[in-house]
This record gives sequence, C-alpha cells and structure tokens, in this order.
Amino acid sequence: MKRIIVLGATGSIGTNALEVIRNAGEKFKVVALSGYKNHKLLLEQIREFAPEYVAVGTEEGYKEIKAEFPNMKIFLGEEGLRELAMLKDYDILLSAVSGAVGIEATVEGIKNSKRIALANKETMVAAGSYINRLLGEYPKAEIIPVDSEHSAIFQSLLGGKKKEVEKIIITASGGTFRGKKKEELKKVKVEDALRHPNWSMGKKITIDSSSLVNKGLEVIEAHELFGVDYDHIDVLVHPQSVIHSMVQFNDKSVIAQLGVPDMKLPIQYAFTYPKRAANTIFEALDFIKVSTLTFERVDDETFRGVELAYKAGKAGKSMPAVFNAANEVAVELFMKGKIGFLVIYEIIEESMDRHELVEIDSVETVKRVDKETRNWVYSKYGKCKGEK
Amino acid sequence: MKRIIVLGATGSIGTNALEVIRNAGEKFKVVALSGYKNHKLLLEQIREFAPEYVAVGTEEGYKEIKAEFPNMKIFLGEEGLRELAMLKDYDILLSAVSGAVGIEATVEGIKNSKRIALANKETMVAAGSYINRLLGEYPKAEIIPVDSEHSAIFQSLLGGKKKEVEKIIITASGGTFRGKKKEELKKVKVEDALRHPNWSMGKKITIDSSSLVNKGLEVIEAHELFGVDYDHIDVLVHPQSVIHSMVQFNDKSVIAQLGVPDMKLPIQYAFTYPKRAANTIFEALDFIKVSTLTFERVDDETFRGVELAYKAGKAGKSMPAVFNAANEVAVELFMKGKIGFLVIYEIIEESMDRHELVEIDSVETVKRVDKETRNWVYSKYGKCKGEK
Repeated sequence: MKRIIVLGATGSIGTNALEVIRNAGEKFKVVALSGYKNHKLLLEQIREFAPEYVAVGTEEGYKEIKAEFPNMKIFLGEEGLRELAMLKDYDILLSAVSGAVGIEATVEGIKNSKRIALANKETMVAAGSYINRLLGEYPKAEIIPVDSEHSAIFQSLLGGKKKEVEKIIITASGGTFRGKKKEELKKVKVEDALRHPNWSMGKKITIDSSSLVNKGLEVIEAHELFGVDYDHIDVLVHPQSVIHSMVQFNDKSVIAQLGVPDMKLPIQYAFTYPKRAANTIFEALDFIKVSTLTFERVDDETFRGVELAYKAGKAGKSMPAVFNAANEVAVELFMKGKIGFLVIYEIIEESMDRHELVEIDSVETVKRVDKETRNWVYSKYGKCKGEK
Repeated sequence: MKRIIVLGATGSIGTNALEVIRNAGEKFKVVALSGYKNHKLLLEQIREFAPEYVAVGTEEGYKEIKAEFPNMKIFLGEEGLRELAMLKDYDILLSAVSGAVGIEATVEGIKNSKRIALANKETMVAAGSYINRLLGEYPKAEIIPVDSEHSAIFQSLLGGKKKEVEKIIITASGGTFRGKKKEELKKVKVEDALRHPNWSMGKKITIDSSSLVNKGLEVIEAHELFGVDYDHIDVLVHPQSVIHSMVQFNDKSVIAQLGVPDMKLPIQYAFTYPKRAANTIFEALDFIKVSTLTFERVDDETFRGVELAYKAGKAGKSMPAVFNAANEVAVELFMKGKIGFLVIYEIIEESMDRHELVEIDSVETVKRVDKETRNWVYSKYGKCKGEK
C-alpha cells in the first residue's frame, strides 16, 4: 500500500486523484490532504478518506475542521503545505496546488527523498534549474509528471534510451480559438475562451489553453523534466487530443501514448509507476468512435504562447519565471475584463523584454522575480478598462 | 560490431537489410549471405559485402559463384541455409527466406543460442508452439520480429509489463480492395490485387494484404510471439499505415509505434535492440504531410482472412499450418488465373474443415501437414480454369 499526500485536494487534479484512490482498492492510503478556500469540500474529503493530517488555507476552514475533528493535526496557511511535505511516513507527494507555494512543498518533498507526482506547473517552469540541481543532491527523490502530455512523454521514453531521443513532440488541442485570426481574437470574451472542446479543466488553464501559453509552459516543463534541448522539442496541433504526446528516437521510430482525455490515467500512473494497474473507472479508447486524428502546424502568427515560451526557455535562468508570472496576471486581467485577449501576449513580451536575467538559486529568488513581474504588470495594466 | 547472417538476401527484406548494413558504418558485418534463384544479384552482394560463407539455391548459381570466388565456402540448396545457421561465429540470423525451409534455419539458430531477426512468417504461424518450446530450452536464444506490425508491438510492449497487457491492436491498411463488396471482388484480377497503396512488397504478400490473410497470419504470429490470447488481439483498419500497431495496457493507456512505411526501420531495430541507432537512410514522419489518420472496422463479411485466422489460431496445434499452406496454394492458383479472388477463402475454409488436428512436435510434422494440405488443394483446384 502506497501512502499518499494530496496537496490541492479540492482542485480539479486533486478531486480526480481522490477518485483514482477511491476506486483503486487497497493500493493507496491518503495520509494527508490540503485545501485552500473550499473547506466544505475538504471536510467531505476528510470524512471519506480519514487522513492523519490536513492543511487548510483559511481561518474559517481551520475552525470548522477543528470543530468536527478536534484530535486531528491541522495546519493553517501556506506553511502547512511545507509541513505536510516534511512528514516522514509517506511515499508519494501529489503536488496539485498552483503557484509558488507548490514549489516550496516540492522542494521539501525532494529533500525528504520522496516521489513527487507533479501537477504544479510553476515548479519546473519557474524553478526548473534549481529543482534539477536539488534532484542531483537527493538521488532517491524522483518527479513523475501528472500532466497528460508529460506523462505521455514519460511513458513513450520507455521505448528507448535517453541519448537515443531525437525529438519530443508535444501535442496541442489548439484550444477554443483554433483557426481564428488576430482580428477575430481582439474581441473575444472570457466566456468564449472557457469553452474547451476536449478537456474539463479549471478556468485559468482553459484560457492558457486558448492562448497556447499552456503549451508554451509545457515546452519549458518538458525541457526541464526530460533534459531535452529546445531545438528538439516540437509542438504539433492535434485537435482530437487522443495522442497525448510522442517521442521520436534517432532511428526515426516514433513512440506515442494515446488514451481518452482523462486526468485520472496520468495521475494513477504517477502513483503506480513503474507498474500499471487496472482500475474500473478508466475508459478505453474506442478507435472506431474516434475514427479520425488530424495534425496541423501551430499558427504562431496568431497564437504567440508557444513562440514566447521558446524565447523565455532559451533565455533561461529567471526568464521562464517572468513568462509565467506575467501570463498569470495577464490572464487575471483578461478574466476581469480589463484587457483584450491578445494583450496577454503583449504583457508577456514586454515583461520579458524589460527583465534582467538572474540565476535561480533558491525558491526565494523565484518568488522575488515573480513578485517584481506581477507588480510591474499590475502597475501598467491593472487599471485598464477593457482596452484591446 | 555485430556479425550478421542474411538468409534470403536477394528478396525484398534481404535487400533492405543489406541497405541498412551498408549505411550503418562499422556497426554490422555480413558473415554469410544466402540467395535462391537470383544468383546474379547474389554475386553483386558477395562482391560488395565480402561474406565468409554463401548458400545458393541452384547449381548454375553455385558454379558461377565458385568461378569468381574459388576459395569461398559455398553451400548448395536448402540444406545450405541450415548449415549457415549452424555456424558458430555470428550474432544475428536474419531469417528472410519464405517457406518451411525458413523454419529449419530458425530452429538451428535457436539451438545455437543466437538472436533470430525473424521475417519468415511460417516459423511462428505453422510451428509457433514448437518454436516456443524450443526457446524455453535455449534461454539465450531470442526472436526479435522484423515485420513492421510485430516490431511495433515489440516496441510498444516496452511501455509496461507483460501481465499488464490488456490488448494488442494490430493495424491493417485494409489492402487494395478496401471498401469493395463481395460482388465486386468476384471479378478482380491479379493486376488489381497488386496495387498496394502504402508498402512496396513482394507479389504474394501483396495479394495476402488484399485478402487480409496477411493480417490473419500476423494475428497468429502475434499470439505466438507475445503469448497473448486471441481474445486480446484486435485488428483495426488504418489505411494510412502510419501507426504500425499498438498495445493497450490494463490502465487503458495505449502505446503505439509510428513511422514511415519502410521495412528498414524494423530490420535495423531487430539488429540493434535493446539499443537504437541513427542511420542516415531513415526518413522521419512528417505529421503535417500525413495530416490525417483514420480507423475503421475490418469488413469481416467481405474479407474473411482475419476471421479464418482466428478460427485456425483458436483451434491451435496443426491448424495454423493448414491455414498457411492452403492460402499459399490458393494465392498461387489465383495468380495463375485458375481461381477467382474469393475462392481463396473457400479453399482455406475447406482445407481447415477437413483437417484432423495433430500436435506440432517437430519441423517434420509441419512439413507433412503442409504437404498434405497443398496436395489436397492442388488435387481439387489445380485444374480449374478461372472459376469464380
């Protein structure tokens, strides 16, 4: 039985993870759960999974949980996530919280020589070089990606040796606005961006998918996770999201991982690797129903998320952290109706252009770069009133 | 440097194998070559690759080669293939001859504890149970499939453990006549059957591809090679032949191998496994050019090659040998214009219905069953004059 800590239990990945655990029988045991604002859901999860520890983001949540579970060890606030990661008696830390706080928990998990099932994008994007250095110092720690694309790459890499990898091909649905041109995108609204064809995800990530910034973040993450040069990472638009990603080896053999679009598969794989496990909640691909798979080039002219990510990734050091932070604020401003969709790219580009690179030597540095970037974006765009 | 024997050097697989070796630099050395009737080509190959041993099928060929290479060790006739397989100083036996003689060479290669790069279908179809028993006795021997589908399955299986395999999905181009119905097939001619859309292959195999008997043979071969039950092997029509085959694991994750339709890739992989190697002659897949992949059910009503193979495979013992022998004669008769296309299926079915199962305990038994089946088919259909 593997003992699992679920950070971010009330989010999309977290609830999927608990569904995997619920249906996997005796394979997994929930040691600890964390939630931020949604303590009602967290309470339900505590009742069902009876964890030994809990972390919650709000005082109100803390009080309610304490009232019902007076003897449970409950941590409050961001510090609680680190406390959970520092526990000894567990096997896997699922990091499914968003933001820099996810990095700190991962760092503690690595120092604790644990397996990190990683769903927090910031970790490898903003702090990849630091995390990789840390993994070198703690050789028993390991990161197994939970993102469907990176899980697909991870699985496809089993088909050969690392030095035989010629190219990683990350597939992209193309997002809600695939096929649209710049003129049309100037006027799109938040509601338009939230209609994703294949995956059911959180709002922020759905907008990132529409802008292809999400795919850009995945390129940087793939570079850091798998140690493959940016020149050997391609993005391929594949609207059906059936092929989750691929690896081309030096003999031109391409290994791909396919499946229904369901986060539960990569989540479970991150738990069971190097094994796999049957689970009744998983649906098999029906190729007759799928019927057709198509491929297209990324329209880099219109959707600059990927191109800007390559620029950030190739600049290296603190630049990916700037890319990520600028995008987060830009998406927030877009969701509030303060800026138009295409301004997201302008904000990312301007933030990167004005940034002076620093080495990422600690989580503190990531946080500082993150904060500086956010402040600058807010100061310039925070008071906009729906400009295009 | 790996020392390789190429049996069937003048055929389609053989010439592709020599192209792989020619372009792989110092990785491989040709120890021996065999050819049957085409000794002119064999002579050219001998001049280029300077093997230490040669086997040739005809007296005329023997004399010509002897005249030019008086000091070379040359074997004559079928026995020569076995002699080559029994040599000690080599690493890999590529078995790319057709017919039962390929089985005997493979048997000697296994007893010699060598790697067999297997392109001879008869071996696993007609003698699979015997070969598998033999592999148990000689644990250092190994068979690496050269067929593109089985190589794809072999590569995809690296994505998990054997007990985690839920389903093997063999893809099929659907052949030249895909989409046609029985009425239309009654009148097709040999020339029609030979227009294969994706692969450049020999005539017999192209007709087998049109009838889907080839795919049926692959189902039986997959069962024997990978030890997977027939109920866990599916055939999926995929006209573009880009996905060469797939494996579905118990967590519903599907691993697939993709590539351009080129035998050189699986041939080289059978040589280099568990490694891969760059080779300048290999072309990469261009997904933008490929653009669309489609999937369809097999039309079992019209193309009975797959269904009859399952029947033969599930009956087991000597039945797959009957399936194979009956088909070989049927295709020969079809190519001579003696029978119509659909009669191929009738011949296979009748041959199977009248056969009394025997255990495959030796190559002799395979040969006897093969001969009995052929004789019966010839006696009943050999004198036909173009019946439907």
